[in-house]
Amino acid sequence: MTDTDPGDGTTVSLADAFDRINDHWAPRLAAECNGQHVKLAKLQGVFEWHHHAEADELFLVVAGSLDIERRDAPDVHLEANELHVVPAGVEHRPVVPERTGIGPDGDEAHVLLFEPAGTLNTGEHESERTRQVEDL
Amino acid sequence: MTDTDPGDGTTVSLADAFDRINDHWAPRLAAECNGQHVKLAKLQGVFEWHHHAEADELFLVVAGSLDIERRDAPDVHLEANELHVVPAGVEHRPVVPERTGIGPDGDEAHVLLFEPAGTLNTGEHESERTRQVEDL
Repeated sequence: MTDTDPGDGTTVSLADAFDRINDHWAPRLAAECNGQHVKLAKLQGVFEWHHHAEADELFLVVAGSLDIERRDAPDVHLEANELHVVPAGVEHRPVVPERTGIGPDGDEAHVLLFEPAGTLNTGEHESERTRQVEDL
Repeated sequence: MTDTDPGDGTTVSLADAFDRINDHWAPRLAAECNGQHVKLAKLQGVFEWHHHAEADELFLVVAGSLDIERRDAPDVHLEANELHVVPAGVEHRPVVPERTGIGPDGDEAHVLLFEPAGTLNTGEHESERTRQVEDL
């Protein structure tokens, strides 16, 4: 269920929202809050290295698991209900382990992201993997 | 597990964090992200009516359930893995249903809050229920 009525706020069921997402690495806008976007995305496989010059990026794993590889620091491994904030400027690459037990092939991560409105999924450059955030 | 190393970001297990919280309505700072605070709190019973003049407030129910009563709109009922954004200025009162199945007496809600740093839990006034946010 997603119910948006201006002035009355937004209510989102994460389970229902993820049921409606059928692609990977394409963030959906679930809610706005103080100029920040709450995005939901299904992830699978390996993304590309990038950084956000000005934006901290929060990853909360809702289902499955996720590795956040970093150039200059150890990988971060997140299970469901674990969150990590990648500070602005830190180069990172999200990678979903091969066996998460989530999704039709058991290889997905379902992730909630918090970041400033306008943050690009590929950071400071555009590539074939760049996606504009879409509504749920 | 909570691991904070400046420059390398913050990792928080919500389950471990809630295990360490033993009181109600006392928000703990789990992470900071773009001037916003990610707070965790155990809720029980009825809070007081308040509003935040300038701050939208996001509630994500991690376990249990929560009603957000509003003066001028229908109540919002949230189950686990549902989120709601209360827009700035909207008077509201969080109320935990009597039977949530969570906590020693089965009457708690475990909630993640996202709001600007400095947001007071009782909104624009201080009361006996005002709590400064504490570290986890």
